Amino acid sequence: MTEIQPSASTRHRLVIVGGGFGGLEAVHNLRNADMDITLIDQRNHHLFQPLLYQVATSTLATSEIAWPIRHLLRKYKNVKTLLGTIDGVDTAARTVSTADGETIPYDTLVLATGARHAYFGHDDWEPFAPGLKTLEDATTIRRRILTAFEKAEREPDPAKRAEYLTFVMIGGGPTGVEVAGTIADLARDTLKGDFRVIDPASARVVLIEGGPRVLPAFSEDMSAYAKQALEKLGVTVHLGNPVTECHTDGVEFGGQSLRAQTIIWAAGVQASPAAKWLNVPADRVGRVVVNADLTAPGYPEIFVIGDTATVANGGKGTVPGIAPAAKQQGVHIAKTIKARLVGDQSPRPFVYHHDGDLATIGKRAAVTDFGWIKLKGYIAWWLWGLAHIYFLIGLRNRLAVALSWLWISVSGARSARLITQKDAAEEANTP
Amino acid sequence: MTEIQPSASTRHRLVIVGGGFGGLEAVHNLRNADMDITLIDQRNHHLFQPLLYQVATSTLATSEIAWPIRHLLRKYKNVKTLLGTIDGVDTAARTVSTADGETIPYDTLVLATGARHAYFGHDDWEPFAPGLKTLEDATTIRRRILTAFEKAEREPDPAKRAEYLTFVMIGGGPTGVEVAGTIADLARDTLKGDFRVIDPASARVVLIEGGPRVLPAFSEDMSAYAKQALEKLGVTVHLGNPVTECHTDGVEFGGQSLRAQTIIWAAGVQASPAAKWLNVPADRVGRVVVNADLTAPGYPEIFVIGDTATVANGGKGTVPGIAPAAKQQGVHIAKTIKARLVGDQSPRPFVYHHDGDLATIGKRAAVTDFGWIKLKGYIAWWLWGLAHIYFLIGLRNRLAVALSWLWISVSGARSARLITQKDAAEEANTP
Repeated sequence: MTEIQPSASTRHRLVIVGGGFGGLEAVHNLRNADMDITLIDQRNHHLFQPLLYQVATSTLATSEIAWPIRHLLRKYKNVKTLLGTIDGVDTAARTVSTADGETIPYDTLVLATGARHAYFGHDDWEPFAPGLKTLEDATTIRRRILTAFEKAEREPDPAKRAEYLTFVMIGGGPTGVEVAGTIADLARDTLKGDFRVIDPASARVVLIEGGPRVLPAFSEDMSAYAKQALEKLGVTVHLGNPVTECHTDGVEFGGQSLRAQTIIWAAGVQASPAAKWLNVPADRVGRVVVNADLTAPGYPEIFVIGDTATVANGGKGTVPGIAPAAKQQGVHIAKTIKARLVGDQSPRPFVYHHDGDLATIGKRAAVTDFGWIKLKGYIAWWLWGLAHIYFLIGLRNRLAVALSWLWISVSGARSARLITQKDAAEEANTP
Repeated sequence: MTEIQPSASTRHRLVIVGGGFGGLEAVHNLRNADMDITLIDQRNHHLFQPLLYQVATSTLATSEIAWPIRHLLRKYKNVKTLLGTIDGVDTAARTVSTADGETIPYDTLVLATGARHAYFGHDDWEPFAPGLKTLEDATTIRRRILTAFEKAEREPDPAKRAEYLTFVMIGGGPTGVEVAGTIADLARDTLKGDFRVIDPASARVVLIEGGPRVLPAFSEDMSAYAKQALEKLGVTVHLGNPVTECHTDGVEFGGQSLRAQTIIWAAGVQASPAAKWLNVPADRVGRVVVNADLTAPGYPEIFVIGDTATVANGGKGTVPGIAPAAKQQGVHIAKTIKARLVGDQSPRPFVYHHDGDLATIGKRAAVTDFGWIKLKGYIAWWLWGLAHIYFLIGLRNRLAVALSWLWISVSGARSARLITQKDAAEEANTP
């Protein structure tokens, strides 16, 4: 058991766990504060999750949407970055412990540890229906999609071939809609002419949503437009029946069976175990029910933000689990922490400003809803593209992503169509 | 057991196994020939191996040096691409068999199945000293290099920390020299300022070559220059003593022990088992000893090219195992196959033209030897860069690679510094 903190320091010690949107934003806003900040993440990279589905569908390379955290923070002299997995918090001793047996002391703690996809009692579905939260998830899904076309090309049995050419998305939120639309584009456009036996355009892309409409965060007319746009791309949309079974040959829902070799899970997330570490109340998906100032109940020195927390949004439900909300929370707690450092202990409730919702459907359509204006179609798609390029960190990545998109738009080719190493689950699952 | 070939065809059936430089060049030169060509590869991508070390050292992304084979060949209407692993040849029945139990008939067969790195009786060294031949090898090595710096940052014991900061390259050929030079650049330049506890510039980079000099394919003065350039970058070069042991804590050579947590193997290759499939004579590293026309002894209908064949180079030893040689062989056999198709059975011995040798040492130096002119230093480095961009397949990748290099050259940042999923060997090997 080793202590990482230099013993000489008497400065305030802030430990931030998680280098996602919330954690990074907090660090950024505290870069000039008179304190020692330690940022801990189990990955060496910050991931631009809103574009992860583009890696899964061969549009972007992994390095176009991820950057080493320590490099992003290299100029912040009060910040130390550690690669490590946290497995507990000792709230009495005020330390966090890592899986390697280290303990790291804090005066103030920020838990911004995010969420993973979850199967809600059906964890056995994971091998058949992987989710999309990490770079590895994305390359796994990319490998499965591309391998399915390769297997179909070699398959003499037409029924089996159809199974390989059936792609099922479970979940009609932005991820499900975006993946479905992009696979449809891939099949109808990018792969055109590449095969000799199969016609990739004959692939079936199916989206299954248990609720009454896709993109439930949007207005009803936007949902209706998104469904229509998906259908125009050749995606079959099933609404109103949740999936009741996933297995090696396909899925079951609403009393019917659908045979498919590629299934992607985008139907739910589970927060990281921050509530368990702190032994505080959590909601249905494990998020800490935080106070209005984003502190954990009973622990004014512990903030919980982003996808691992839930907080009321004025009178309108709870703050949504999206990147802009996590960033606003990071900014907010940075202000609170700075105020406290100079003795200002006044309560600072978090107020969320909803800037809008964006989702793309394939290469040519999108829906955007900024409250005061709603857009759909090609203009919305361009707006979506500009917004995402704008928010990408770092000049070079903006350029590289813009170049990738421009190239795909002009040529239809996707540069990142690589089938790389199999994982263990894959080996077990595929014939 | 299924036959893939459409039964209706009476055209000449050419099967090419391997989509590397030799196999692709043969296909390209036969794209208008009146025959049915099947290209089989166990990967879906062609790999630009000369730049693989740049993926291993975080300079380039995987998709910048690899392209889907079927997409490269999509316009060649007489070519069918199959993803599959060949495990044998039935020379009597004239079929190749795949690991999935399929058999594919041929009239003419081309084996261009390449080579893997090899440990020559020390396969147990592989977990400690991975080699560099595939994209997965490259991401494994990248992960190990970057993880070593992360572990050093967290390690309180100075001796252990020094072990994490010691990088050993085994083998002084182009790969060993290029990897050593790039790791030195990474440590001294790219990672500068990213860490708080360690100084990445204090990393030891050690190159161990059993022979008397590095880059033995070059002239003695070029070898001497390369050694000097490596030393200037801070690389320690040990010559004359082969490694006698690799284990979890480091390597042994020339009676001394060197403790290191990152070891990379670039000391030897072994040809794919084509000689075993055909039951024909092979050299020391398993390459088929082919006839002057690149056919296998006793099988005029079977060609073996590239790294899996060996053939005399006029009076000067054998043709070297490099990309330009494989490409020339691909062009040569395409001519032979076309001539035979119109009844011309005259013998066509292969004549190799050596265009030159190129190797880089870090970001600012290289050695080139074109026979008529030898260059070293910065000019040679630019020449090396231009030559590689020129030979990269596809406009977009040329642009993307040029952009990556330019960015690194100007900013010192490397965009592909991602630690992605661990492999099983890694899990077992690291503490």
